[in-house]
Amino acid sequence: MSSVFGTIFRVSTFGESHCKAVGAVIDGAPAGMQLSEADIQPQLDRRRPGQSELSTPREEEDIVTILSGVELGVTLGTPIGLMVHNRDQRPGDYEEMAEVPRPSHADYTYQMKYGVRASSGGGRSSARETIGRVAAGAIAEKYLFERYGIEIVAWVDAVGAIDAGPVDLTGITRKEVDAHPVRCGNPAMAQAMADLIAQVRDKNDSVGGMVSCVCRNIPAGLGEPVFDKLDALLAHAMLSIPASKGFEIGSGFSGSRMLGSAHNDPFVSKGGRLGTSSNYSGGVQGGISNGEPVYFRVGFKPPATVALPQKTARFDGSEAVLEAKGRHDPCIVPRAVPVVEAMAALVLMDLVLRQEYRKR
Amino acid sequence: MSSVFGTIFRVSTFGESHCKAVGAVIDGAPAGMQLSEADIQPQLDRRRPGQSELSTPREEEDIVTILSGVELGVTLGTPIGLMVHNRDQRPGDYEEMAEVPRPSHADYTYQMKYGVRASSGGGRSSARETIGRVAAGAIAEKYLFERYGIEIVAWVDAVGAIDAGPVDLTGITRKEVDAHPVRCGNPAMAQAMADLIAQVRDKNDSVGGMVSCVCRNIPAGLGEPVFDKLDALLAHAMLSIPASKGFEIGSGFSGSRMLGSAHNDPFVSKGGRLGTSSNYSGGVQGGISNGEPVYFRVGFKPPATVALPQKTARFDGSEAVLEAKGRHDPCIVPRAVPVVEAMAALVLMDLVLRQEYRKR
Amino acid sequence: MSSVFGTIFRVSTFGESHCKAVGAVIDGAPAGMQLSEADIQPQLDRRRPGQSELSTPREEEDIVTILSGVELGVTLGTPIGLMVHNRDQRPGDYEEMAEVPRPSHADYTYQMKYGVRASSGGGRSSARETIGRVAAGAIAEKYLFERYGIEIVAWVDAVGAIDAGPVDLTGITRKEVDAHPVRCGNPAMAQAMADLIAQVRDKNDSVGGMVSCVCRNIPAGLGEPVFDKLDALLAHAMLSIPASKGFEIGSGFSGSRMLGSAHNDPFVSKGGRLGTSSNYSGGVQGGISNGEPVYFRVGFKPPATVALPQKTARFDGSEAVLEAKGRHDPCIVPRAVPVVEAMAALVLMDLVLRQEYRKR
Amino acid sequence: MSSVFGTIFRVSTFGESHCKAVGAVIDGAPAGMQLSEADIQPQLDRRRPGQSELSTPREEEDIVTILSGVELGVTLGTPIGLMVHNRDQRPGDYEEMAEVPRPSHADYTYQMKYGVRASSGGGRSSARETIGRVAAGAIAEKYLFERYGIEIVAWVDAVGAIDAGPVDLTGITRKEVDAHPVRCGNPAMAQAMADLIAQVRDKNDSVGGMVSCVCRNIPAGLGEPVFDKLDALLAHAMLSIPASKGFEIGSGFSGSRMLGSAHNDPFVSKGGRLGTSSNYSGGVQGGISNGEPVYFRVGFKPPATVALPQKTARFDGSEAVLEAKGRHDPCIVPRAVPVVEAMAALVLMDLVLRQEYRKR
Repeated sequence: MSSVFGTIFRVSTFGESHCKAVGAVIDGAPAGMQLSEADIQPQLDRRRPGQSELSTPREEEDIVTILSGVELGVTLGTPIGLMVHNRDQRPGDYEEMAEVPRPSHADYTYQMKYGVRASSGGGRSSARETIGRVAAGAIAEKYLFERYGIEIVAWVDAVGAIDAGPVDLTGITRKEVDAHPVRCGNPAMAQAMADLIAQVRDKNDSVGGMVSCVCRNIPAGLGEPVFDKLDALLAHAMLSIPASKGFEIGSGFSGSRMLGSAHNDPFVSKGGRLGTSSNYSGGVQGGISNGEPVYFRVGFKPPATVALPQKTARFDGSEAVLEAKGRHDPCIVPRAVPVVEAMAALVLMDLVLRQEYRKR
Repeated sequence: MSSVFGTIFRVSTFGESHCKAVGAVIDGAPAGMQLSEADIQPQLDRRRPGQSELSTPREEEDIVTILSGVELGVTLGTPIGLMVHNRDQRPGDYEEMAEVPRPSHADYTYQMKYGVRASSGGGRSSARETIGRVAAGAIAEKYLFERYGIEIVAWVDAVGAIDAGPVDLTGITRKEVDAHPVRCGNPAMAQAMADLIAQVRDKNDSVGGMVSCVCRNIPAGLGEPVFDKLDALLAHAMLSIPASKGFEIGSGFSGSRMLGSAHNDPFVSKGGRLGTSSNYSGGVQGGISNGEPVYFRVGFKPPATVALPQKTARFDGSEAVLEAKGRHDPCIVPRAVPVVEAMAALVLMDLVLRQEYRKR
Repeated sequence: MSSVFGTIFRVSTFGESHCKAVGAVIDGAPAGMQLSEADIQPQLDRRRPGQSELSTPREEEDIVTILSGVELGVTLGTPIGLMVHNRDQRPGDYEEMAEVPRPSHADYTYQMKYGVRASSGGGRSSARETIGRVAAGAIAEKYLFERYGIEIVAWVDAVGAIDAGPVDLTGITRKEVDAHPVRCGNPAMAQAMADLIAQVRDKNDSVGGMVSCVCRNIPAGLGEPVFDKLDALLAHAMLSIPASKGFEIGSGFSGSRMLGSAHNDPFVSKGGRLGTSSNYSGGVQGGISNGEPVYFRVGFKPPATVALPQKTARFDGSEAVLEAKGRHDPCIVPRAVPVVEAMAALVLMDLVLRQEYRKR
Repeated sequence: MSSVFGTIFRVSTFGESHCKAVGAVIDGAPAGMQLSEADIQPQLDRRRPGQSELSTPREEEDIVTILSGVELGVTLGTPIGLMVHNRDQRPGDYEEMAEVPRPSHADYTYQMKYGVRASSGGGRSSARETIGRVAAGAIAEKYLFERYGIEIVAWVDAVGAIDAGPVDLTGITRKEVDAHPVRCGNPAMAQAMADLIAQVRDKNDSVGGMVSCVCRNIPAGLGEPVFDKLDALLAHAMLSIPASKGFEIGSGFSGSRMLGSAHNDPFVSKGGRLGTSSNYSGGVQGGISNGEPVYFRVGFKPPATVALPQKTARFDGSEAVLEAKGRHDPCIVPRAVPVVEAMAALVLMDLVLRQEYRKR
């Protein structure tokens, strides 16, 4: 009961870090849409490890194969099966962890939940699981852009205490974001972030960060009242990404400090539709999009697997010192950027399809 | 597609602000549990308007009736229907809003979504909708406490820029929280908060705030990998509450500033089970509870309906000045406390039942 | 986990035979549709007991109230709450059954499932539960007719060994069906059926029967491949009606005896679309509607509650003789007619809405 | 919205007849269960084409690979990905059908639904899709047997007008069923059935048939009241199998002819539990299992694809004569036997897991 997301556009993912393959099955994708692996691979390439010296040296190509649901380059309306082989299936680096659950990792909680767990890597909690999401998200993004012109752009908003600073929500592009491997969208701050990551990596430590995201050209009316509000589904989606600890939309927590007279977004006429002159709401009012850009921020903790010795306990309760081996990211946020975009796309895609049936 | 929450313990709510009744149907409640209206009414009383001069003078008693699913004080395992009559069905105060959508309220977005909307009050977006949630949450809480000893306590963590300050997560009780109508749990700060709310109210303005919540005695193993992580469901639940704009669990956004060596929670032996000596994780690792207290924070924006004149636009795009009439809360967070508790209870209840079938 | 039907048009029902009320919550009903209790009551009147001497003398008016989701006679797109009070809450007639589970009734299985059961009547297994379905079905029917001209007509196809004989699928109307209280649509056979029911009733016995149903003007393309085929959902819906034991669509079981060359329905041009010259398929091919009338048959067992003495066993295993008291239908099929129509409407409504989002 | 079955034990299938692979993802399988491909392959072998001269000469080995969810032969509790490559991807035989939809096949309805369809074979409507179901069913069966001793045995109950005759529900085994390739369980009738199939095949025609199934050692209490009754889910499951047209449980349609006094199953003491002395109910009362054998029957139409010339129409409405090429089964029921068993297993598995969480 863990692997399905969405109501009409339903994504199931499968796969652990060291099994034969990871992938996804997408149910509810519209028929008649042009689609090939080439539409999906670029976001997987942005997600894969080993892109720069800022991330884990674990090199994986992560080549996607479409198994079903597409014929002659066109979607059939039937489930789209997607698969990426796990090339790296060596469990060697993880022996010590059989006895010592990694602090703040999922080893202990999986064991308590299932009474068994994958013997190596993160198993199902590994970031490799996000491959299926990113692949599914790429399909959603293609539809959203072709049909509505929706653009989704995420960037690294902070690494540790270094903030990217203000960003032009209406203009920022993926090209700008990717101009530097740290993906912060602000050239001036990118090098400072990269330096911090390198410094942390050299100390065998890790550091947290934040990712912000904007979704533009969202039609008004997306999101369901009550439980499936647009912002509630985005929060669900973002907190489902490994290592995320917080979500805020629009003014977010800083809006809690404000007065209503200052926080309210006045309506103004914008070329035939109502818009707002400010956007503290983050494009969502009453859980439903109002046509303004939807923007939100996600906080990520520092990766739990660090090579520094950590004083902790074994499963049996005895004391232990763990020095994690393996190849790990010192900071996850640059690679989290396409994952945040993918999850936003899955939310929007499902809500768009839910709404299309209403607009008759 | 808006009104069902949960997978096994499924809660459907119904009702607008001025229809005949609001309520809920709860499917999946365990059979054989003692239950009567007296188990539900107290949380509704904590939620209802008119409790103190800090909230709207709209007086509603909100008396709950159990329609089905309970016989002779015992649950049958069948759906529990719950209903609260709307005594106040006068739409008189809302005439002007027919032409002028309230800034940052849901008038505009509902109209765009459905092509129609309730003529008065917030309709389905009204906080009255939360009555069904609070009633359902009270049932969930009862089960969680009786079977696992789970305690859920929320409190006002901030009103505007005034913070409640640190709270003892292991000890704070509802009695302490309710000692002052502002429900901040810290007597020293409560009066300052109340003064701020009174001051804002007298200026016909409103102010935001934050609510924190702790869930104690959570068994390890709750939460599903990938999409239905405990923290992801909590985020979904909290962002589904009207006026919420942010969610963070454990260290939250401040954890994004930290190094892994400082943020990791070392395991220690705690009376026969593994615990952690710190709890930056907020009781959740890999999306699954680890047995430590689960704590999180929710940010609420200032209520959108203020009596101050606001320059805005009509539905037709022409300029307008809106002075909202009606009786509204200047600050929602004291009344949001039982709603946060209820939504936390719904999440935990569903995950507890999902897990029970695994533990054979 | 028992009371929700549908994916987009979701119907939850609640209520036992002797609790305060039975009802339904309908999520996903389109906004902007004219609706009042007067659209719902007629089908409830066709379902209610005491309509003629052929059914139970238990007189219940079953007046429906719309609690929410409708304002000024127009649907809001929000959940529609519906309620019918249970006027008859006397558990007196059921004392003996506390010890002796009625043969072929649900007393024993509910007790085994939940460890508790309603002390009187059928509890949740009572046919009163179908009130919520019939009310929801009436709303679905209204939409289906107004938007697509869809007509749904069911009739009694057999009472015991007496068959109604062939019926004109393209022409039969509810008015014709209701011309005789036995609702068989064939005046010649109606009296024979009524005589059989009276005879069985006078012997304190009961008798089974069949209901057939045709759905006309179904657009091609309804139904989902694989699991949610139109015929699979109809089968699910019909077997969920109390006392039903079988379902067949089109040629049904008799088609199993045929050769493909005889059974195949050749395509022919019908006024700009493809139709078929025969309709052994029952309007469904590969689980998807082809535009021809959808017709199917449902078999109902004789009601289990009979006043004749039955040799059986108590819960404790000891032998007993049960003479059921209470007021029961000697034959359920005349009253099952609107229930079959309602369930068909719920299936079609959900599939229509699922399909509308595809047709862009 | 077509490819997920189940609530807790959720099976998604993917794949068309001529894409790269067909398969399934199973979410909710219990952790800690021993599992390998060897547990799954035997049922796939019973399903595959080319087993005898009674079925299509299309030879496919259908070797299953477990992609995820199992490590070192033990299930992890995470989604189990299963895949079977499509070796036969030649679309050559299907050219004519591009213009002429096959009568009573899904060509026309898929085209009407999606505006596009697989160019060859049945696409998603192909019986190859059932591979994923049979594989998932084998896993369910293994759990059901190991934990409850549940046995599921299906057999061919009729081919055309030839009936298998009465079968010992309490004793029939798969070994007996498989003793003859026609799988009727009755040696005396098997040869007559085989002769009929051969005769039909030689005439380029096809013939229908029926499959019956018994499920033994079912614990009392399975099935949910109202919509998810055990019999309703079985009906749903069976009508979702390609070419099925009818379902009946227990006495089924013949029970509609009976009186209640004859049809009721009296309770008797059976070694410490209540059983029934007859079983017209088919092991289900009020939608919930009573501990007696669950038995039901499924009617299958003759396969639609026949090589005989058929007078029909093109998509454009013009008349055509179709002589289907390709390699097709003259009678599907022998190969439907493991599919019926698999679908029964999926229903029971989901209901067993739903019930386990209640029994605390």
